[in-house]
This record gives sequence, C-alpha cells and structure tokens, in this order.
Amino acid sequence: MKRILGIDPGLLHTGWAVIESAGSERRYVASGVVLPNAKSPLPERLAVIFNEISKICDTWSPDECAIEITFVNKNPTSTLLLGHARAAAMCAVGTKNIPVYEYEPTVIKKAIACGGHADKAQVAAMVKILMPAAAPKTADESDALAIALSHSNMSRTLKM
Amino acid sequence: MKRILGIDPGLLHTGWAVIESAGSERRYVASGVVLPNAKSPLPERLAVIFNEISKICDTWSPDECAIEITFVNKNPTSTLLLGHARAAAMCAVGTKNIPVYEYEPTVIKKAIACGGHADKAQVAAMVKILMPAAAPKTADESDALAIALSHSNMSRTLKM
Repeated sequence: MKRILGIDPGLLHTGWAVIESAGSERRYVASGVVLPNAKSPLPERLAVIFNEISKICDTWSPDECAIEITFVNKNPTSTLLLGHARAAAMCAVGTKNIPVYEYEPTVIKKAIACGGHADKAQVAAMVKILMPAAAPKTADESDALAIALSHSNMSRTLKM
Repeated sequence: MKRILGIDPGLLHTGWAVIESAGSERRYVASGVVLPNAKSPLPERLAVIFNEISKICDTWSPDECAIEITFVNKNPTSTLLLGHARAAAMCAVGTKNIPVYEYEPTVIKKAIACGGHADKAQVAAMVKILMPAAAPKTADESDALAIALSHSNMSRTLKM
C-alpha cells in the first residue's frame, strides 16, 4: 500500500489529495484546498503554501508526490506566478525527502480519461467514477485527485 | 544596526549576501553562492536552494530580505524556471518570518548606480566601490550585494 499526494498548485487555490494505491486498488484518504490570502504579498502567500503542504506531509505521510508540469501558455505572467506557487509546494515536499514526480497535463488526462485532450469536466467525471468516496467540493481538489490517480496508474505501468 | 540579506536567485547559481546597515554606514558580513546540482531533478534543486537559504538565515539572522522582481523576458520558459528558484528562496525566508522586500531591477540599478539602465559591469563596479571588503568572486554574489545595498539605501529613504 503506497500513499500518494497529488498537488494542483495555484497562488489563490492549491488543491491537494492523498490516496492509497496497491495493485489495482485505490482508496481515498483525504483532500482539500490551501487558500492563501489574495491580499497578502507574494512571499507571504508562498510561505502559506509551503507551511500548509508541509503540515499535510506530516499529517498524512505520503510516500510519493505527483504534480503537473507547468508550461508557458498565452499569459506568461500568470504562468510565472503559477510557477512560484508550484515551487513553494515542491519545496515543501522535497525538503521532507518525499520523491516528487512531474507529469505533463496531457499525460495526466490520458492516464485518467483515456484521452490527452479530455476537458476539465471529463476529467472531473472520471475522478467521481474512480473515487466516489472523495466527493471533491472544488475543481482544485478534483484536479489534485486526478493527478494522484494518474500517478498511481503510471507508477503501476512503470512498476515503480 | 540592521542586517539585510540580498538574494539573486537562479536554478544553477543563487547568489546571496548579508550586510549590516545603520544610517549611512554599511558593513559587509558574508556572501556566497548556492549551487544546486544541474543534473538533479527540479524538485531536488529547489529543495537545495530552500535548505541552503534556510541555513543562511539561521547562521546570519537577517532582519530583512531583499530580492529582485522577475519579469517575463524574451524567453518565458527560462523566466518560469527562474521564478521557481526565486520562490524556493522566498519560501525559505518567508517561513522564518523575515520580511521580504521585492524590487524592480531598474529600481536596484538606480539606487546603486544612479541609473535605471546601468549595465552589469557598472553595477559590479559600484558594489566594489561601496563595499570593498566584500570582494565578490562571482557575478551572482556581486548582484546579491547590489540588491542588499539598494535595499539599505531605499529603506533609509523610506525610513522603514
């Protein structure tokens, strides 16, 4: 039984989800959203993400962590800010010596919804089917579950 | 007497410098470069930056930290990676509850070299004149000193 922490980073909302995986079995453990104060300066918001993800690691003791790779999109400034949030989350996990696996968004979609170009709603629908106990309240939580579930599928394939 | 930590972040080289400032007096304390292994995966490199900057904070107990604001330039992918390194450094300082001040590059150049468009060599020359005891061995260390010196000038002006 392996515990996986999936993270969907963002400066306003960082979704997280912990699942357990053994062979073809998947079990929901916990999930939530880290919400830094949007009015706080950037360093404070990053510290909130770092501290909250650190606490989540301490509470749920994941064996591995999975996170999406960020690519520069049409708005490079937003991407840069997203990169800051992503780095804060990765630092929290990395400093606990938990291995972090990075996945391209299309790989996550393919692993969970059988299509690299599945839209958000299709991914969310698959998360509900694969892990009904999770009942994510937000898109960030659902995306974090999708990342954790994808990693459990990928690591099974790769026999990690 | 106030201790200022200046940081020039980068995934390959993160320059840092600690100076003391009181009124118009400036004193060199320490400086160096954090060098994450270029062959390591991104999360490990970020963890190295975080851990090393955390240790620097513990060793030198800065009261304030100054760091450059990153803007998207001609290479948004490099900027995104730089943003990750910057966030790792800011997390290390932020989680120690040390206030972080962010400055635009032109503001730093203006504060230290009396011109917002001074080139790297001019800034380095001014660092040598203003703080001869520092004798920075690398451009990253020199830039970190420039950031710390600029902050000491700015905070004097702003009476922080």
